[in-house]
Amino acid sequence: MEKTTQLSVMGGGLVGCLLSLYLAKQGYRVDVYERRPDLRRTDLGGGRSINLALSDRGWRALETIGIAEDIRKVAIPMYQRVMHDKNGNLSFQPYGQEGQAIYSVSRGGLNQALLDLAEAEPTISLHFQQQVMEVEVATNKVTMLDTVSGQEHHISPDVIFAADGAYSMVRLSLQKTDRFNYEQSYLDYGYKELTIPPAADGSWQLEKNALHIWPRGQYMMIALPNVDGSFTCTMFFPYEGEPSFKSLQTPEQLTSFFQEIFPDATALMPDLAQEFFENPIGSLVTIKCQPWRHSGKILLLGDAAHAIVPFYGQGMNAGFEDCTVLRGLLEQHQDNWETIFQTFQDVRKPNTDAIADLAVYNFIEMRDKVADPRFLLQKKIEAKITAQYPDSWLPLYSMVTFSPDLPYAEALANGQRQEEIMRVLMEHIQKEEDYDKPAVQEYLQAQLA
Amino acid sequence: MEKTTQLSVMGGGLVGCLLSLYLAKQGYRVDVYERRPDLRRTDLGGGRSINLALSDRGWRALETIGIAEDIRKVAIPMYQRVMHDKNGNLSFQPYGQEGQAIYSVSRGGLNQALLDLAEAEPTISLHFQQQVMEVEVATNKVTMLDTVSGQEHHISPDVIFAADGAYSMVRLSLQKTDRFNYEQSYLDYGYKELTIPPAADGSWQLEKNALHIWPRGQYMMIALPNVDGSFTCTMFFPYEGEPSFKSLQTPEQLTSFFQEIFPDATALMPDLAQEFFENPIGSLVTIKCQPWRHSGKILLLGDAAHAIVPFYGQGMNAGFEDCTVLRGLLEQHQDNWETIFQTFQDVRKPNTDAIADLAVYNFIEMRDKVADPRFLLQKKIEAKITAQYPDSWLPLYSMVTFSPDLPYAEALANGQRQEEIMRVLMEHIQKEEDYDKPAVQEYLQAQLA
Repeated sequence: MEKTTQLSVMGGGLVGCLLSLYLAKQGYRVDVYERRPDLRRTDLGGGRSINLALSDRGWRALETIGIAEDIRKVAIPMYQRVMHDKNGNLSFQPYGQEGQAIYSVSRGGLNQALLDLAEAEPTISLHFQQQVMEVEVATNKVTMLDTVSGQEHHISPDVIFAADGAYSMVRLSLQKTDRFNYEQSYLDYGYKELTIPPAADGSWQLEKNALHIWPRGQYMMIALPNVDGSFTCTMFFPYEGEPSFKSLQTPEQLTSFFQEIFPDATALMPDLAQEFFENPIGSLVTIKCQPWRHSGKILLLGDAAHAIVPFYGQGMNAGFEDCTVLRGLLEQHQDNWETIFQTFQDVRKPNTDAIADLAVYNFIEMRDKVADPRFLLQKKIEAKITAQYPDSWLPLYSMVTFSPDLPYAEALANGQRQEEIMRVLMEHIQKEEDYDKPAVQEYLQAQLA
Repeated sequence: MEKTTQLSVMGGGLVGCLLSLYLAKQGYRVDVYERRPDLRRTDLGGGRSINLALSDRGWRALETIGIAEDIRKVAIPMYQRVMHDKNGNLSFQPYGQEGQAIYSVSRGGLNQALLDLAEAEPTISLHFQQQVMEVEVATNKVTMLDTVSGQEHHISPDVIFAADGAYSMVRLSLQKTDRFNYEQSYLDYGYKELTIPPAADGSWQLEKNALHIWPRGQYMMIALPNVDGSFTCTMFFPYEGEPSFKSLQTPEQLTSFFQEIFPDATALMPDLAQEFFENPIGSLVTIKCQPWRHSGKILLLGDAAHAIVPFYGQGMNAGFEDCTVLRGLLEQHQDNWETIFQTFQDVRKPNTDAIADLAVYNFIEMRDKVADPRFLLQKKIEAKITAQYPDSWLPLYSMVTFSPDLPYAEALANGQRQEEIMRVLMEHIQKEEDYDKPAVQEYLQAQLA
């Protein structure tokens, strides 16, 4: 039976589309308002990152709406990290066990697929080029700008779902209400997207099924494969200092720097200088706030509630998991929005706080630690522990990435406990074979029995 | 010689007025825009707290504009904390050494005096009922609402000083720019102002020259004297839980609670129920942000840059100290606004972060620790150390309150070092006389020599 409550979802991105599908399945009419033009009919260019890492929490959500298999056809599994040193030597670190991978997918392609699904639902109406200017929180009256006509108009939905991203205008309105806790914190690093094009025969010029990292201590570059044979490289680099975006001012400085620091990648980047100086520098923000809800009338979710930096590849996955949790609560509590929203916040907030902190931490791991032989040895030892104690040990990365039922906060807590065990253990270990030493085995037995 | 740069100060409160005076003395024309009506001609009622604690950093600023003596006549020195237990028994803790005090002053009275001074300056123009709606950061174009006519108009000053308080609209515009770090965090406590009126003969019904505290573990009430013989009481109390603002719903619940918890005060509060249910609950926010400046065009200061909770009595004092620092930089760097603003931020930010954290910490001390005999004994021992080692020991409270040249961050660091010494020392001390034990004296000698 169709319900009469008027629901508006602000934002027609990944999370807004998925949520609107879930709401429609529950029998609601849903209006989706998106600031940008319909990306299926417009080339939007730059801005957000081009590809994303989809992992198990994300797949789980896509399976519920029946498009997992379609997306899998255009997703590229990445089974390992491949580290490139300054001489072009490679080292390898699998992400999980045999067959486990994270998947490089196109943000635009995935968004298009979700928009197609939403459009096919008779109870979902998509409205593009509609920009939220302000929400009168007491009444849910939304001032909306039609960016085509330049005219403002008003809507007053019963319930507003704010999936309008890290720079959410709904959240900005909530921020002006009393007792709204809010934090936006930027890293002193920006990012720049660059390209390694396909080879002449259309093939990938680096190992296709991997996430490539050029770890350089205080900064790094990574590369993810695209279906067209190219790689999208992302350079994470300080805004200021030496070296920094500020210090690389001329094509000569740039080329000489890249040739010294990223020689193997540079040889594959014919348009480096042009891309570097034309593409914008993206900033890296973490956003935390509380409450996420205003009574049973407004709910923040996805990046609007908890934007995170990209280093754990979990931003979209966390947003999709929001939808998974909400879906369960919608079924359980029906129209009781206050209960749904409060429970959602109580359940999700500790977990999104955890993944936010993990994401910042993983930057340090990626840019610095993965270049350290001791760190790579530790990862190998951890893999042995997982094999020996499969019921009581899983590496943190696997808990976050390949365990879609494990809350992020528990993954973090388990990970901290395991890290302490590893710290003690590694004092006894100089090479892989030391794992079999009695002292090591006894300590492990005592800790994990 | 008069300068041609157009300076606008947003906010005609305590900090905005003092700053405008300093700018005028440097030869600038200054426009001051204040959202509210002229408080010298209107009774504004509630909202901000009625009285403030003025201490040495504040006095130092008032002395530079020649009104310290006038203010001193209407300020009431508070030489000590007086703690009231549940049976009405009192205990005492001096704030500093003989003659040292913090001063209870009327916020309104002080603001009026500053407005009078500003108005008397021919190069300062005051504009009331002018509300900043938005600042176009790239151009410094300010959209201003005249709240009398309801008309919007625009100004484009060369430099904007935002002294528009904790809910600064200038800061809100900056928040929307890239890489602006921002945090607003609320305590789970609100405050309510209540009154102990004068006795029939006009005299004070509690010790006049003291700050009174009713410490009750998780919450507290305080009282500051006013010149009219009354005390303004402020109850700091949880919003929710048991007991809380939410749990006290009827006059009967309220009266019974107050008679049990604050019996001696309650006997002096004839209008308790009416005030409690009519007065608003104030919220308690800490605001941190960075950068405070946008190139050499916009500067945040005072609460707009670093609002703090009131428990160290330093909010206004810190804002005045901002002006003191700026005044020095104005003289040193003349019109070089970029240098002035960047140096201001570099110098002040660590110090305002320190006082923000100290203020939150002091809530715990005031509501809980001052009721603990061990804590009061520790304070007495500290006084002995200060007397014996005057060159190397000053209690943290004195460093913050009575040492106007010591940066807050240094006070905090010294305080943490001293607290560690006290922790060790107090293990050897059960009563005041134990201070003379050889072990105690030797340890102190070793630490402080």
